[in-house]
Amino acid sequence: MTRGTIPAPDRIPAAALRAVVDGRWAGVRQETREQLAATEMHTDPDLSSAEYRAHITDALKLLTSSGRPLSGFDPSVGGRGDVGGVVTAFAMLAYGDLSLLVKAGVQWGLFGGAVQVLGTERHHEEYLRRIIDGELLGCFAMTEAGHGSDVQHLHTTATYDPAACEFVVHTPYPQARKEYIGNAARDGRMAVVFAQLVTGDERRGVHAFLVPVRDAAGHPMPGVTIGDDGRKAGLNGVDNGSLSFDHVRIPRQNLLNRFADVAEDGTYSSPIENETARFFTMLGTLVRGRISVAGGAGGAAQKALALAIRFGERRRQFADPSTGEEIAVLDYLAHQRKLLPALATTFALHFTQDDLVARMHAIQAPGAAPAGAREQRILEQSAAGIKAIATWHATHTIQTCREACGGAGYLEENLLPGLKADTDVFTTFEGDNTVLLQLLAKELLADYGRTIRKGNPLEIAPLAGRQLAGVLAERTGAASLARRLPFRGLDLTDRARRRTLLQVRRDDTLAAAVRALAPALRKGTDEFTVFNAAQDLLLTAARAHVDTLVERSFADALDRVEDAGVRALLERVYDLHVLSVIDRERAWYLETGRLTAAESRSLRPLVDVLCAELRPYARTLVDAFRIPENRLACPMLDDEAWAPVDPVAM
Amino acid sequence: MTRGTIPAPDRIPAAALRAVVDGRWAGVRQETREQLAATEMHTDPDLSSAEYRAHITDALKLLTSSGRPLSGFDPSVGGRGDVGGVVTAFAMLAYGDLSLLVKAGVQWGLFGGAVQVLGTERHHEEYLRRIIDGELLGCFAMTEAGHGSDVQHLHTTATYDPAACEFVVHTPYPQARKEYIGNAARDGRMAVVFAQLVTGDERRGVHAFLVPVRDAAGHPMPGVTIGDDGRKAGLNGVDNGSLSFDHVRIPRQNLLNRFADVAEDGTYSSPIENETARFFTMLGTLVRGRISVAGGAGGAAQKALALAIRFGERRRQFADPSTGEEIAVLDYLAHQRKLLPALATTFALHFTQDDLVARMHAIQAPGAAPAGAREQRILEQSAAGIKAIATWHATHTIQTCREACGGAGYLEENLLPGLKADTDVFTTFEGDNTVLLQLLAKELLADYGRTIRKGNPLEIAPLAGRQLAGVLAERTGAASLARRLPFRGLDLTDRARRRTLLQVRRDDTLAAAVRALAPALRKGTDEFTVFNAAQDLLLTAARAHVDTLVERSFADALDRVEDAGVRALLERVYDLHVLSVIDRERAWYLETGRLTAAESRSLRPLVDVLCAELRPYARTLVDAFRIPENRLACPMLDDEAWAPVDPVAM
Repeated sequence: MTRGTIPAPDRIPAAALRAVVDGRWAGVRQETREQLAATEMHTDPDLSSAEYRAHITDALKLLTSSGRPLSGFDPSVGGRGDVGGVVTAFAMLAYGDLSLLVKAGVQWGLFGGAVQVLGTERHHEEYLRRIIDGELLGCFAMTEAGHGSDVQHLHTTATYDPAACEFVVHTPYPQARKEYIGNAARDGRMAVVFAQLVTGDERRGVHAFLVPVRDAAGHPMPGVTIGDDGRKAGLNGVDNGSLSFDHVRIPRQNLLNRFADVAEDGTYSSPIENETARFFTMLGTLVRGRISVAGGAGGAAQKALALAIRFGERRRQFADPSTGEEIAVLDYLAHQRKLLPALATTFALHFTQDDLVARMHAIQAPGAAPAGAREQRILEQSAAGIKAIATWHATHTIQTCREACGGAGYLEENLLPGLKADTDVFTTFEGDNTVLLQLLAKELLADYGRTIRKGNPLEIAPLAGRQLAGVLAERTGAASLARRLPFRGLDLTDRARRRTLLQVRRDDTLAAAVRALAPALRKGTDEFTVFNAAQDLLLTAARAHVDTLVERSFADALDRVEDAGVRALLERVYDLHVLSVIDRERAWYLETGRLTAAESRSLRPLVDVLCAELRPYARTLVDAFRIPENRLACPMLDDEAWAPVDPVAM
Repeated sequence: MTRGTIPAPDRIPAAALRAVVDGRWAGVRQETREQLAATEMHTDPDLSSAEYRAHITDALKLLTSSGRPLSGFDPSVGGRGDVGGVVTAFAMLAYGDLSLLVKAGVQWGLFGGAVQVLGTERHHEEYLRRIIDGELLGCFAMTEAGHGSDVQHLHTTATYDPAACEFVVHTPYPQARKEYIGNAARDGRMAVVFAQLVTGDERRGVHAFLVPVRDAAGHPMPGVTIGDDGRKAGLNGVDNGSLSFDHVRIPRQNLLNRFADVAEDGTYSSPIENETARFFTMLGTLVRGRISVAGGAGGAAQKALALAIRFGERRRQFADPSTGEEIAVLDYLAHQRKLLPALATTFALHFTQDDLVARMHAIQAPGAAPAGAREQRILEQSAAGIKAIATWHATHTIQTCREACGGAGYLEENLLPGLKADTDVFTTFEGDNTVLLQLLAKELLADYGRTIRKGNPLEIAPLAGRQLAGVLAERTGAASLARRLPFRGLDLTDRARRRTLLQVRRDDTLAAAVRALAPALRKGTDEFTVFNAAQDLLLTAARAHVDTLVERSFADALDRVEDAGVRALLERVYDLHVLSVIDRERAWYLETGRLTAAESRSLRPLVDVLCAELRPYARTLVDAFRIPENRLACPMLDDEAWAPVDPVAM
């Protein structure tokens, strides 16, 4: 392995590092930083929920004036269709108050986004400007108390009444109430409600409807019952609540009818014949939410690391027996091992997120070539998997950073408690992570099955249940997949070979899942039993798949770096990330004979060496995200508090 | 392996299960349950910090009337000296409001406990009754902003002035302020302050002093500056704050003088000559705090699992393709794998905690035979290690339970957010977990070194720094330790052999640390560099040591079970715990050749089978802790909310 020399920390060319970290939306990043730097700093952590909600609603309205929300919408309503830019800026709101990030996400991403992509001109003209300007605040009412992950089977109904040309929206029983809905408890005037469309006694599956939920004075509309979810672990500036509908009537035109319509006489029509395909097409347009959450998680992890690494450089504990001088906690290997691999993976996910945003932009921005089903499906798969891995990474990293700052990390004034509590729900909203990884695994299985069948590996609707079972059951050759992969005594210091290690794991774990599933399905064992017994294998395969996506994005980013010094630095970060992944999974590599015991034992010392090499650059690296200083300012980092010790007192 | 048959869930003899779970302090447990059942339920999560603190102070005074705090103190002040009982009852407060648990721990465990064990008759007579009755609220002021883990080197001074027969307590610079001190910001009238004792210009090391911090009206005493830590991640019913002293004068008699005294003329005397030994003897008497925190963490983990398992039985997601019926989430393997191994380890730690409490009681209860240095040292080692493992287990388990309940788990009304936030600091207070494990590892090394030297393996003062280096450096035979252990193709289904697997890991990891340290120390490499490079090995060895303690306690508990059905059930729980540990560490077993690849691959299916076997007993098991129903009642478990679905709406 030829490795470049890393210049001294003060000789790293800042502009070159900035360019690679900021990537394609550098302008948007800079603008957002300036806005964050110019606005109010930290929210008082002792606000009541009512006060906090009022504060965030005000902040939301201020955000409107930045013009950023508008820029993401279509030119037809005055926007720039800068889908990628708006998601990039959104993620950076994680440097500030996460309640504002989520409130903005609900208002413009979910509510406004649904009107944009599921509605047609009539909805755009009537509502979008008011949504963008924050004049019409709204909800995205998909999740039900009884059906969160299983959206296709939610129970709210919208039954067409041809006599009145109206839909009747109804909550049939308490568990079918819309729940955890942002903007519901206080501010929302209107909701995009997902409900089973019924016309002429026929069910047509889940569709989205615009339902007014409050009148101008803020009182619930007749038939609408609004609940308040009250205090939450975090995000208490967001007014989450429930919505129930008792035969609420809305005009026929309130169906968001881009993918299906109901004529005055109740005739149903859709350009997509298959109900499941239609459902997933509608859902697919909403992929932006998941990608935004992954981005927000990344921003929060970056901020937590910036706080913990700055603290770790200041905080000293125990004297060096040779010198008598107290040692900065970041100089302890155990402390480095907590923070530096997490930092490396945060970089990896940063580049992965940038790629994901660019791919979404290529498909969704106005004027883009119509997305093939294949591109759309791959984007959705990636978004599901990356969202799961990025949010778990954030939860784990922020927890680690809190612990790394000890008692100081437990005080709200030092910002880590808020980061932890606010982002905690990211692992279970916009798709529960475990469910998302299972869905990804099933998609990978289906693609695999179709490839083997020589069909189109990426048809529009995912194969579910019986169909997937069918595809898998007919195959017998799966076991041979692993053996076809090239493999031989991998050198852990070689980038290409480490990549192969990750790829081998991706392919082998998928093959293992196929091997576990196929015989039982062929034998006719019932599907729940078969898939349930293989859940662990499916989750492993999905995670291994995401690991390769992340590695690829980081490697691609390295290839774009022109400055040799910056490249040398980021190569070490890349090395640390990839070796940490292999180290985490080394039991698998040993079990499958992909690593020898000696190779496996060499992983941890390699990680230790990389930690030591990167230790002097820890600050350079977290500073590369250029989180505005006012958003990091807190008592535990106040330099006056670290004034030199009076030597007399020592 | 002969395994008993587990009776059907409704045939498990409740009394027999209760007896084994309740253990030696069954009476105390029952009484505490009744008190928890009879008192107020959940605290309003939207209280301001000021309101919450007032609420908890009231609750603390109510607790006094239960007589429980008194029971832990010596008969000389009217108590029963039921040290074990009071720690057991304390841990169960985790079923209720954790702010009350911590406030009670500060008042009676830390403040009162320090007066009891570090003070003498004059302090007992003057203060203990008022402390027990909650009339004199106080602080335990050990931690400084600049010195948390490294207590021996804290910087507050108490300088004796023979002219006035007074100590002058002083905070020499801002980072030497006492920080994160419970009872400081609002209620405390007096503090046990740990400071460097100086008399006749000679430093005598850290001692404890009684310092009044507020007058009767609640104003800071002259020279005392009190800070408020403000809002924290959790525990906002506790008034944490800082204390600084500007040449504050206290009478000579305010030195807690059990282990050292200063005569009127300033002459220093102590029955323990060595300063370090004296320091660790004083610290050792405070072991109760660490044991109490481990217990509280256990109670919180039990409650989180009770909530998540009940929810997992009610919550249904996705239909079984064969039956069309929706499946309870706890029937999914992935869900079982999240909760059931955590439940098994929670049982293991419950029995471990009971043993630890009994060992402490045997040493500390009035009338106990004077504790040998050896017993005291082993108790301290165990307490440090178990505290670290139990609190990390609680943090991880509660996080998992929150995620397992999805959106419902994020609402404060469903209790999981409070459990998570309140217990989060347990991993870093009463000793930072990473530091505790390192200390344990160094003690194990020292004992090992002494054993090899044929000296007393457990002398009173731990060997630190240079001494430890000396013991290790002189040894050359360490590498042979591992080879002397019996080992041969272990059967994973055999209890004795699995125990051997854990023991082998304990011994081998310690030997690996010795092998890594000894040559470098012999070569004279500086100590910081040598120990720092081995930190990872030290932490591994400490954790492996605790794993064997936990296994032993669980196995001993099994041996005490008389009822065959209960034993059969708990044996499966034991199996799941131990296999999960081996599974977690399987990379190490593979790397060292202790498990073959085939054996390692068989672990996860074995865990899966145990999860499936225990699934029907999940509720029986969490119910065995008999957490009062009023402390588990929350909307997500409200049976009315789970009313059967209207079939017409399906």
